[in-house]
Amino acid sequence: ALRAAVRVHAAGAKMMEAPNYIDAVPDTLLRPGIDDPASMRGKFERMIRKVQDQVCSAVEAADGGASFRQDAWTRPSGGGGITRVMQEGKVWEKAGVAVSVVYGSMPAESYRVAVGKDIPFEKDDRVPFFAAGVSSVMHPWNPHCPTMHFNYRYFETEDWKGVPGQWWFGGGTDITPCYVNEDDMRHFHGTYKGVCDRHDPAWYDKMKANCDEYFQIPHRGETRGMGGIFFDDLNDRDKDAIFAFSSDCAANIVESYVPLVEKHKDDPFGPQQKEWQQLRRGRYVEFNLVYDRGTIFGLKTGGRIESILMSLPLTASWRYDYQVDPQTPEGKFLNCVRNASDQKWV
Amino acid sequence: ALRAAVRVHAAGAKMMEAPNYIDAVPDTLLRPGIDDPASMRGKFERMIRKVQDQVCSAVEAADGGASFRQDAWTRPSGGGGITRVMQEGKVWEKAGVAVSVVYGSMPAESYRVAVGKDIPFEKDDRVPFFAAGVSSVMHPWNPHCPTMHFNYRYFETEDWKGVPGQWWFGGGTDITPCYVNEDDMRHFHGTYKGVCDRHDPAWYDKMKANCDEYFQIPHRGETRGMGGIFFDDLNDRDKDAIFAFSSDCAANIVESYVPLVEKHKDDPFGPQQKEWQQLRRGRYVEFNLVYDRGTIFGLKTGGRIESILMSLPLTASWRYDYQVDPQTPEGKFLNCVRNASDQKWV
Repeated sequence: ALRAAVRVHAAGAKMMEAPNYIDAVPDTLLRPGIDDPASMRGKFERMIRKVQDQVCSAVEAADGGASFRQDAWTRPSGGGGITRVMQEGKVWEKAGVAVSVVYGSMPAESYRVAVGKDIPFEKDDRVPFFAAGVSSVMHPWNPHCPTMHFNYRYFETEDWKGVPGQWWFGGGTDITPCYVNEDDMRHFHGTYKGVCDRHDPAWYDKMKANCDEYFQIPHRGETRGMGGIFFDDLNDRDKDAIFAFSSDCAANIVESYVPLVEKHKDDPFGPQQKEWQQLRRGRYVEFNLVYDRGTIFGLKTGGRIESILMSLPLTASWRYDYQVDPQTPEGKFLNCVRNASDQKWV
Repeated sequence: ALRAAVRVHAAGAKMMEAPNYIDAVPDTLLRPGIDDPASMRGKFERMIRKVQDQVCSAVEAADGGASFRQDAWTRPSGGGGITRVMQEGKVWEKAGVAVSVVYGSMPAESYRVAVGKDIPFEKDDRVPFFAAGVSSVMHPWNPHCPTMHFNYRYFETEDWKGVPGQWWFGGGTDITPCYVNEDDMRHFHGTYKGVCDRHDPAWYDKMKANCDEYFQIPHRGETRGMGGIFFDDLNDRDKDAIFAFSSDCAANIVESYVPLVEKHKDDPFGPQQKEWQQLRRGRYVEFNLVYDRGTIFGLKTGGRIESILMSLPLTASWRYDYQVDPQTPEGKFLNCVRNASDQKWV
């Protein structure tokens, strides 16, 4: 609910302060002397920056060709971003990992509705909030190597008119192959089930279902890919326990994904497989531009466009009324994404 | 305002009746014995079907390679569609022209707000409406040949609770090159200024401004292309006079566009021009999926997806933080689409 309130806020805000591009990234994007480095803000920022380093290093090593370029900026009233993108590598056509730290404010009325309490407020009152996150999409060249996406974020409001600050965590990692490889799916989902099970045995099933739900492309009757885990508005237990879960999920990214790319990066393929991959890339674009809340939020609120749209593939294709035989590998893939909730990989 | 009400309606309706695909298209998609063929419904349907024939014939002739395939359907309670698509021709990578005739109903409350009158209504009352239109997008292979889009539509509600039926026309033709060719733009805009001037000397300037406004991609600070004309909710004069204008606009499509493709279809180009075209195709996709009211309306209300998304290019590309020198032809193009309202072609 708070998340929705922030969206409402931002839709009215339109433009943030202009960024100052920087060559050297400071140790922290928090506000020096204002934010406590030992607070969750500090812990979460350190976690997501470490994840950015780990994932980029592992992907560069597996690619063996290109390296990530970095664009970093700060904003005058605090916060900033670090976007890293690798384009036209040996293995990946496009891979990006972006960290951002945002200080903003939301209208008091939205906050009141979200919190569900009758807080007295003045017209034009605004409630300060903090948001930090890491997000990433990786698109490999080979149609037998899956695309992978992850996002981990933390949000909090400050204490306001006697109501204690609110907070939540969100995130997930999900995979989008072009073909069904059951071993790959068992590996990917299995590693995330392992992480979930260490924190709450109910979480994997619930978060796998959330993921299938979130990545629906309703106009196609398909999910974008073959799922993973997704959670949002998570604040039902101790903050440090959820932080530990979020950190474990993020630490699992490389192990869940990179071995699948290593395994398939030299798999043979022909023009027909490449064409199919390009059509699936088109579906990826459709989901991200029509339905993805983060993308639409960013586009409509003056976020840094190049960081938001780094998620789009290098190339994509749309063919009119493309027909697929249900007996082919492409047909079997379609059956999976049309019945995502039936797929129990682990 | 009525248009907005129909959008609200449709967003709640979700799914229309399933279509019955047909091999032979009947002379009319109106309801036999119910709709008067001499009414504006009949006149408009005949006009848009003639336009579909004319444009497809001219494009096939200019292509000299592929021909249009046709998919047609009717719906049990009336209306239907005829979609024609040509893919991977000699000159065009993808070209589509779609006609549709829709019978629907909108919630009475939306209708009352739209009409601005205090009409007594019962809960769940719905007001019947009729909508017919033709729409098209053509994407050529050669980066020096422009993409073209047009749409002409007519909408009416039936008499209801003592309030006479409401109606309006909408439409326009617009052009999206990858490079600035001033002669081409003078030709395209000139032919539409000619059509407008025959009906109302104030219309070209107004409708050119509408077009620049409508095709904004706010997150890029660019228009999708180099404009044309665009009108909506047009009902400020005699219905037959506006029909005549809409018909003249539609009859001008071939002359405004096909000569530009004939002129440039064999222009030399290299990989750099092709790459630029693919990036501009990416912008086309961004506009259509994020902002185009017709596309979003169709995707979210159960329209025929393949007909709606025939507007997307065969291929598109997204490169991270692509930089363009302002002195190059690409830079000059960007300057135009970033300052669309300053471009006075005629």
